Amino acid sequence: MSIVVVGSVALDTIYTPRGSARDTLGGSAAYFALAARHFTDVHVVAVVGEDFPAEHRALMAQARVHLGGLATVPGGKTFRWAGEYSDDLGQRKSLSTELNVFETFQPELTPEQRRATTVFLANIDPDLQHHVLDQVERPRLVVVDTMNYWITSKRDRLLELMKRVDIVLLNDEEVKLLADDWSLPRAARKLHALGVKRLVIKKSEHGAAMFHGEDRFFTPAFSLDNPLDPTGAGDTFAGGFLGYLDAVGATHPMQFRRAMVVGTALASIAVEGFSPRRLTEAGRDEIAARVDAVLSTMHCPPEPLWPA
Amino acid sequence: MSIVVVGSVALDTIYTPRGSARDTLGGSAAYFALAARHFTDVHVVAVVGEDFPAEHRALMAQARVHLGGLATVPGGKTFRWAGEYSDDLGQRKSLSTELNVFETFQPELTPEQRRATTVFLANIDPDLQHHVLDQVERPRLVVVDTMNYWITSKRDRLLELMKRVDIVLLNDEEVKLLADDWSLPRAARKLHALGVKRLVIKKSEHGAAMFHGEDRFFTPAFSLDNPLDPTGAGDTFAGGFLGYLDAVGATHPMQFRRAMVVGTALASIAVEGFSPRRLTEAGRDEIAARVDAVLSTMHCPPEPLWPA
Repeated sequence: MSIVVVGSVALDTIYTPRGSARDTLGGSAAYFALAARHFTDVHVVAVVGEDFPAEHRALMAQARVHLGGLATVPGGKTFRWAGEYSDDLGQRKSLSTELNVFETFQPELTPEQRRATTVFLANIDPDLQHHVLDQVERPRLVVVDTMNYWITSKRDRLLELMKRVDIVLLNDEEVKLLADDWSLPRAARKLHALGVKRLVIKKSEHGAAMFHGEDRFFTPAFSLDNPLDPTGAGDTFAGGFLGYLDAVGATHPMQFRRAMVVGTALASIAVEGFSPRRLTEAGRDEIAARVDAVLSTMHCPPEPLWPA
Repeated sequence: MSIVVVGSVALDTIYTPRGSARDTLGGSAAYFALAARHFTDVHVVAVVGEDFPAEHRALMAQARVHLGGLATVPGGKTFRWAGEYSDDLGQRKSLSTELNVFETFQPELTPEQRRATTVFLANIDPDLQHHVLDQVERPRLVVVDTMNYWITSKRDRLLELMKRVDIVLLNDEEVKLLADDWSLPRAARKLHALGVKRLVIKKSEHGAAMFHGEDRFFTPAFSLDNPLDPTGAGDTFAGGFLGYLDAVGATHPMQFRRAMVVGTALASIAVEGFSPRRLTEAGRDEIAARVDAVLSTMHCPPEPLWPA
């Protein structure tokens, strides 16, 4: 069992009300991989420049993330993003985005990567996501993420892609934009009609929702008293979700539900620190305890409402 | 077992994107009572004017709501509210508020009402809420609701009241305002320190949360494809929550959790129609089915994350 993730590896500069971090490890593929690797083998397909720090590479390598697909462009500069969060961490403002080597990224998979059992297409150009799908062999599970920009600019290409995959992972704003409907259950129904098989919706502090036909599941967020940096929480959720599913086989409906809780737990750990650092520190005991903590907040055994 | 609810009975005029209703039955006590009466005896303490339609009174009486405490002020006019909802029902604008007889409301309880096992102090002036508490004998459970206006204008009086009751019921905005903190778990901790024993937070389409020391519980909302009128959803939630708790005794922690699900289910039924009409139509089978539907969206049995 193994996952191939195609996305970004970046250098993030982040300002929050409780501190800041400069040129820290970031990018969808980095957060995803460092979460998923707790459960399965993860191969990163991404690109960096010659300026990418050896320590960031070492952090991922030491976490047993496979970096054979992390290409370095000679003379190139790594994708850089800088952003600032509002006091309540609920809003963020991009201060600068330098795509650099990411602008001409052309993901090419090795034979081993093509045989991965799970494929995560993180948020990149839908044309590149199609190109990756054309290369993989017989994955058991293919999942796609995207963003408002592609929903607006490449909607048809994106809808084509969504028919080719098993799970579409979006945040609530993206779902409403894509379906042009403010009601999530109605939006989910519309997307099902357009060929989306299973829809997983990230709702940040309000948790996550899964729609699969009439089967619906909701996980609350694990709310922290003092979250530090929400960057990468969505990709960390995806990493926990798919890492667990790849390991257990993704065969039973209850596994998909438990995977949502695993993703929620890992995302709550990630936001306790800047960059994906906390994901490299946390061990199985801590992760299992956090999963239990999330489950305990949603535990409610059925019982008759009225005496018989 | 019985509940006394002290609050408003009103005539609502409501405009939504899918229709409107004129001078329909409204008010916190009406919604609360018509939800709670599915589980226990409910006594309404409220006031109306001579213009209050006999059909609204009959609707509540036929639902076996005790109306001995619904005073009619000779020559007076009933509290009237008119409001308009946004396209997504997420925002509402008050078009007019005429307090009328509600402005001089002085709740006085009969001996039978004073012996109620559960007391719900719906959103009224905290001084009146204190006045009701001074009258009741030995209720098992006292719950208070309020609104931004009182939090701002009578904060100290409200905090005194909150120390006297078992459960404080607020929406998320009210919690943040009262605790002056955007983080719900941190706000809950602050309110605990101020003497709040159990905090139940209504989050509309995002469900509801319960904080009781370190014990936390979250219920998702039961999202409808086509909600009609969200008016009274919070009071309906309170009615289901307390009606169930009054009936089962409110002794075991799991009963409080199940009560949250019952409140959620009844609120989702109420918003399917204008006024509390759907609450008078729904029978035990429909309510039980809705409770099961909510529980099914949060069901996730624990299992080891990794093979032993």
